[in-house]
Amino acid sequence: MMNLPAHVDIREVCLRDGLQIERPIPLSAKVDLLEAIVATGVREVEATAFVSPSKVPALADAAELAAELHRFPDVEFSALVASPNGAKRAIAAGLHSLEYVVSAADGHSRANVGRSSTEATAQIADIVAIAHDSNTSVEVIIATAWDCPFDGPTDPQRVLDIVSAAVDHGVDRLAIADTIGTTTPRRVTMLVEKVRPLIGDIPLGAHFHNTRGAGLASAYAAVQAGITRLDASVGGLGGCPFAPGASGNIATEDLVYLLRDSGIGVDVDLQAAIAAARVAQEAVGHDLPSALLRAGDRIPG
Amino acid sequence: MMNLPAHVDIREVCLRDGLQIERPIPLSAKVDLLEAIVATGVREVEATAFVSPSKVPALADAAELAAELHRFPDVEFSALVASPNGAKRAIAAGLHSLEYVVSAADGHSRANVGRSSTEATAQIADIVAIAHDSNTSVEVIIATAWDCPFDGPTDPQRVLDIVSAAVDHGVDRLAIADTIGTTTPRRVTMLVEKVRPLIGDIPLGAHFHNTRGAGLASAYAAVQAGITRLDASVGGLGGCPFAPGASGNIATEDLVYLLRDSGIGVDVDLQAAIAAARVAQEAVGHDLPSALLRAGDRIPG
Repeated sequence: MMNLPAHVDIREVCLRDGLQIERPIPLSAKVDLLEAIVATGVREVEATAFVSPSKVPALADAAELAAELHRFPDVEFSALVASPNGAKRAIAAGLHSLEYVVSAADGHSRANVGRSSTEATAQIADIVAIAHDSNTSVEVIIATAWDCPFDGPTDPQRVLDIVSAAVDHGVDRLAIADTIGTTTPRRVTMLVEKVRPLIGDIPLGAHFHNTRGAGLASAYAAVQAGITRLDASVGGLGGCPFAPGASGNIATEDLVYLLRDSGIGVDVDLQAAIAAARVAQEAVGHDLPSALLRAGDRIPG
Repeated sequence: MMNLPAHVDIREVCLRDGLQIERPIPLSAKVDLLEAIVATGVREVEATAFVSPSKVPALADAAELAAELHRFPDVEFSALVASPNGAKRAIAAGLHSLEYVVSAADGHSRANVGRSSTEATAQIADIVAIAHDSNTSVEVIIATAWDCPFDGPTDPQRVLDIVSAAVDHGVDRLAIADTIGTTTPRRVTMLVEKVRPLIGDIPLGAHFHNTRGAGLASAYAAVQAGITRLDASVGGLGGCPFAPGASGNIATEDLVYLLRDSGIGVDVDLQAAIAAARVAQEAVGHDLPSALLRAGDRIPG
């Protein structure tokens, strides 16, 4: 048997990555979803993004949603930012944990933030400085870590260069993201094995979409390769508006099911995650791709 | 890096496991689907089942379909049987490769074939004798190898007892089947590691459904554990009519994508498998769960 970790930390990204591609929903519906998500027991929640409201109208209420978060002191909330200015807005709204996305591929980087990958990488230092001045942590998420919808396969060296820059600039955490849901387990293993020697004790997470059906297989490969931080979205909601062909994140409840049956501890309750997926499905008004939402647990709940 | 095999054999089960739960479709539509499947390059095809036409009306035309198979001499066609009488019918129809299903759980065994697991196991000897008298091979497929929809989790010892009986009776191949799509990678690894020491050189395959989203993750775990024979169904069509909650097999095209990108050779062409999935979708008249059918290859085809 391979060695598997005793515990995996799940970060719930439904409120940000899940909703960003959807038609805007009312703040009250987001608060209902937030409450359902907190009720799952999850310890880390990506709540929103402080980005251009015109580019991502679904998250234009970031500051309003942030004002609700103080009600849940046991959860670590984070927000995604795409610039130093976004970082300042997030901190002003009360966030103490930021994710800064850098696309490894220029095509996606320009479509996503209007800058090359090198230009986006160069901003890591500023964002870390702004955050650390305010007792705020920064995770760099490397998008299109395997493939770009515009540039094709991503040379792993591009990822490693961003990893090295992020480490040099003192980021608190790192993650590698399969933005368009194209990666597969062996490619995950290979990239993780290249990244890990560069990062010392900095926690490394991974973010998968299930676009080509291999999301859970990739997540399990990541865990086998030593990753103990995974993003997931209740209902499998999700997709990047600036990455053609992107679709749902791996569903939290499907991931919890797989990890539980692998003897790996998680903070998320399976039935509560299914209930939160139902709230998400209701909020967006269309069927979600989650498997457990349809099939339920194998053990009667 | 783990050692992965150079090649995995895929058996296409759309015409049997895929169609058995569907409303019967005309023979001409099956022949169109058969031609699309053969065009994928696959070397093994489960063509139909010789079972009760009243219990599985979708496969009542087994003999008529079998009469079409001589047109494709490069493909090894097989048929599923549930009794010695079914084996005789299949051989009379021209098949030279049989699959005999034995459920490890009594609940599913009784629902599926009206016999206990022990009674079904006892018939292996008869079926092998009938088949080997006619230069025909027999694979024993152990259904509900992990969980039963009626009895809950399956004690692995029940699977091992059937494996031992099948080996004693001289079967040519074995397979373990996740009939209701509940297993997960670590449970796959654990069961394969128990089965392999008992079977010598007898080939061992695996059969997964994607009901809880973990089908491809389980298939990859099986391959990591040394299995080089996997069942799959174009479009992800499939499900057992006598197993409540069962749903689609892993989709051939999704499996081919994952294996190809893991550096593992397969005989099935990805674009041809997607084309066959479209034919299957047209034949049954409803959307199929395949991911690649929607998202396409990551590499422009």
